[in-house]
Amino acid sequence: MGEKQREISVSEFFTKNRHLLGFDSPARALLTTVKEAVDNSLDAAEEAGILPTLRVDLVEVSEDRYRVAVEDNGPGIVKAQVPKVFGKLLYGSKFHRLAQRRGQQGLGVSAAGMYGQLTTGKPIIITSKTGKGRPAHHFEIVIDTARNAPSIVKDATIDWDRDHGTRVEIELEGLYKGGRRSVDEYLEQVAIANPHAEILYQPPRDRELVRYARLTEELPPEPVEIEPHPYGVELGSLQRLLKDTQARTLSSALQTEFSRVSARVAGEILSIAGLPANRRPHEVEPAEVERLHRAIPKVKIQAPPSSCVVPIGEELIRRGLEREIRAEFATSSTRPPAVYRGNPFIVEAGLAYGGDLRQETEDDEAPHASTKTVDAQQGPITLLRLANRVPLQYQQSACAIFRAAVETNWRQYGLTQPKGSLPQGPMVLLVHVASVWVPFTSESKEAVAHYPEMLKEIRLALQDCGRKLGSYLRRREHERRELRRRSIFEMYIGELVESLGKLARVDRKKLQKELAALAAQHTGDGAEEAAPIIAATKRVREGVDEEADSEEMEVPK
Amino acid sequence: MGEKQREISVSEFFTKNRHLLGFDSPARALLTTVKEAVDNSLDAAEEAGILPTLRVDLVEVSEDRYRVAVEDNGPGIVKAQVPKVFGKLLYGSKFHRLAQRRGQQGLGVSAAGMYGQLTTGKPIIITSKTGKGRPAHHFEIVIDTARNAPSIVKDATIDWDRDHGTRVEIELEGLYKGGRRSVDEYLEQVAIANPHAEILYQPPRDRELVRYARLTEELPPEPVEIEPHPYGVELGSLQRLLKDTQARTLSSALQTEFSRVSARVAGEILSIAGLPANRRPHEVEPAEVERLHRAIPKVKIQAPPSSCVVPIGEELIRRGLEREIRAEFATSSTRPPAVYRGNPFIVEAGLAYGGDLRQETEDDEAPHASTKTVDAQQGPITLLRLANRVPLQYQQSACAIFRAAVETNWRQYGLTQPKGSLPQGPMVLLVHVASVWVPFTSESKEAVAHYPEMLKEIRLALQDCGRKLGSYLRRREHERRELRRRSIFEMYIGELVESLGKLARVDRKKLQKELAALAAQHTGDGAEEAAPIIAATKRVREGVDEEADSEEMEVPK
Repeated sequence: MGEKQREISVSEFFTKNRHLLGFDSPARALLTTVKEAVDNSLDAAEEAGILPTLRVDLVEVSEDRYRVAVEDNGPGIVKAQVPKVFGKLLYGSKFHRLAQRRGQQGLGVSAAGMYGQLTTGKPIIITSKTGKGRPAHHFEIVIDTARNAPSIVKDATIDWDRDHGTRVEIELEGLYKGGRRSVDEYLEQVAIANPHAEILYQPPRDRELVRYARLTEELPPEPVEIEPHPYGVELGSLQRLLKDTQARTLSSALQTEFSRVSARVAGEILSIAGLPANRRPHEVEPAEVERLHRAIPKVKIQAPPSSCVVPIGEELIRRGLEREIRAEFATSSTRPPAVYRGNPFIVEAGLAYGGDLRQETEDDEAPHASTKTVDAQQGPITLLRLANRVPLQYQQSACAIFRAAVETNWRQYGLTQPKGSLPQGPMVLLVHVASVWVPFTSESKEAVAHYPEMLKEIRLALQDCGRKLGSYLRRREHERRELRRRSIFEMYIGELVESLGKLARVDRKKLQKELAALAAQHTGDGAEEAAPIIAATKRVREGVDEEADSEEMEVPK
Repeated sequence: MGEKQREISVSEFFTKNRHLLGFDSPARALLTTVKEAVDNSLDAAEEAGILPTLRVDLVEVSEDRYRVAVEDNGPGIVKAQVPKVFGKLLYGSKFHRLAQRRGQQGLGVSAAGMYGQLTTGKPIIITSKTGKGRPAHHFEIVIDTARNAPSIVKDATIDWDRDHGTRVEIELEGLYKGGRRSVDEYLEQVAIANPHAEILYQPPRDRELVRYARLTEELPPEPVEIEPHPYGVELGSLQRLLKDTQARTLSSALQTEFSRVSARVAGEILSIAGLPANRRPHEVEPAEVERLHRAIPKVKIQAPPSSCVVPIGEELIRRGLEREIRAEFATSSTRPPAVYRGNPFIVEAGLAYGGDLRQETEDDEAPHASTKTVDAQQGPITLLRLANRVPLQYQQSACAIFRAAVETNWRQYGLTQPKGSLPQGPMVLLVHVASVWVPFTSESKEAVAHYPEMLKEIRLALQDCGRKLGSYLRRREHERRELRRRSIFEMYIGELVESLGKLARVDRKKLQKELAALAAQHTGDGAEEAAPIIAATKRVREGVDEEADSEEMEVPK
């Protein structure tokens, strides 16, 4: 059997398994390509401290072929790195660091290029310029999949009327359509999640240019890069880390290779492990590494610094939602930082309810239906999922965000919710998970894995928004009930006047007027304003049968 | 930014993303390790034409550590290949071929070893022997993740009292538990899907050895290895194939590199593309490859040979289900071969209903409840998913098999089915997808991707089983109704005798006896046996009010 065994290049692997990377259908392939290029552009600009301006162009080459071009005002890429960054899978600057970035793996954009090449035979085209006065480099690259290495088709220096930035062009077999999970919807959500970015989008087929302006001129704070936290380290990683460290002693190795390990903490760990602080890391025996590994959780160590995760922020989430959606009510909530497997993360949620989200239904005619019943007719809410400011559009049901939303009891906040489903109603719910390492369920980065710590934080953020929504809905329901109460009261004015007229000498016309005024006054502004009405009603009651009156005033359940 | 860019080794990538490979929790890690080793053992034995005998041992080393050992009677592995097969990711014999195998990627067992090493620091231990009289090789291997290469800790020749076979031992952080998605359940399903294999399983903690005997002494036919079908080829792959081929002419390149391309078919394709048959493949221009690519779908080409996919077979599926489950009813259905993206596949389904699957519920007491209502109380059915004879246990909701089962209308076959859910009842439903290349949604190979052709075939197999179940359930319901009819008839015998007695000279005692006998005879065996009862009833009717009688005989709806 020996001669059949062969090495498999990572490019061959992902060519054959391209659905793992999000290239399983032409529509999704188009979206994934835009997404990977946009992720890279935003990351690059932010890391260089530049307020990002992006331009995305979709050109229809033929019915099933598109050319995607994404251009940014980022710092550009030095010439020597261009071929590898775009022509080699698993190559990049983000994998070996712990910092909150959109890209993580060094896979995305080269995979998009590889897919383009597979389906159209065309190279990926890159133009990049690192500063004013410097030349712009123009490359055409194909990936040699058997070697997972770039092969340069064209390499030229050109004039480019930009100060700095990068432009990527990929031609691919794709399918453009609007609506759910389209490039249109994706970029709209990118704009919500990145209120500091300006995005210009030219859809295909002569449609109009779309422009998302910045909502803020301030860059989000740059996330701080951290070392791993000792609580999350695995035995094998600890072993390797001690072998690879530059530190001369165990104590200094623990302090330099990990977050939050002071000399005192290192001393405590080593004393529990029974190892001398000045032992050379390279000489530690396997059994000793195990002792060290077991000692770590026994020492109290501070949580990782929260500056390594940067949320969008409650105000900008709300404003982002309000710009895209004219709703009756919007709210948001940002949780404090938490940790899973040693990785800091932060969860925030926002929601927009009612208003333009409500579509007309047949039941709108029924005046006595409660708003809750009418709203539930709208079907399931829309869930926007974001990870490190990137909208996730596929694999919703596999995502921890979806699960937490389904497991939250929305009935207590006044929504209808079928068992095991999202709640129903005219609502957009947004959840953002930011982390130094988002645990995705696949390379296509469309669903967050179900870590218990993460599920818990998402639930807490949702509950916070839910409570605020609940009190809004109760207030609205109360107002509506008051309105209904008034209309019912009005219905009975004639009868009331009749009954009262029989009992005593009453100016019927005057009474009718008074009661109508009373009813008009009787609108749903809550208890304070209800007081005079209650008093007036009492006065009226004195002349009539109390029980009959109170029955008439009863609001139908 | 240049200096931060780095290559990422595939081992580093999968260490950090180990949840992609099925190592995201200790319980799943234990299962995945057993699964990968068992897959390899079964593949190896079958490929060598050996009836597989496997032994799986789980040893609890400490509360959260297990040693997994899987031993087979396969052909063994030649010494030079052992380190790479077990100590390098993306290395193997199956990736570059199109043949129905359990393993596809060359990832599984080395990933399990890497996870063991990461969590316990221990090497993977392999013993392998390729034939009687030959030495057995014993290796201890660790993976150098930065280089994705094996590093040999120990290499010895030992005595082993086996003729041939391989034994793999991995120590890992894991969690053993019984029940759903456990190693126990997994091996039970492996036995159902592989009735030709003998499996010995030693669970941990002094539990008893479990033995699954062979149900057949016949190996399944060896799946034929095929070339790709031209209908599925992508432009980029075609380009590369023409560059890499040994063939001297375009015509012969098409014939040797593809399935089902005869000289005539090749000629047709080339004439539509406007290319000469004797053109040298290496000299074809990109624009010409595109023409060739566009010409292929215009020519009628025979489907791939079905001998490349081997089903379990209707009879063995049914017998396998019946061995594990004492049910009232079992059936199965194997579809003819079909093709997705040029890859042949075959779908089969089986189901077992009622019997031991039915658990007692409170409603069992209600004698008049229909069996359908009672059965629905059992909750959702159990779905067994198999791909190339491997049971899939995680990510059910992401799987095409689940989706097809949910989208099938089970109500028409007499089951209760909540909207968007699996049907309910005491039922186990099994679906097996066999293909030269199963499209999984992630490297952990737990869910089949949603290819439309595959969804369709799964649905057809389910419908076939569903129809058979439906007619069984209707028959059962009819019988039950007959029984109820009889008991109601009996209730009225006294009254009937009374009425008849009033009308004419009748021996009441004799009549009572006759009617009781009639009712007893009147059990639910369908129309044939009902005939004498109907005749006898008619005779009785002649003496009484017909309407009253027929009302009494009516079964309450």
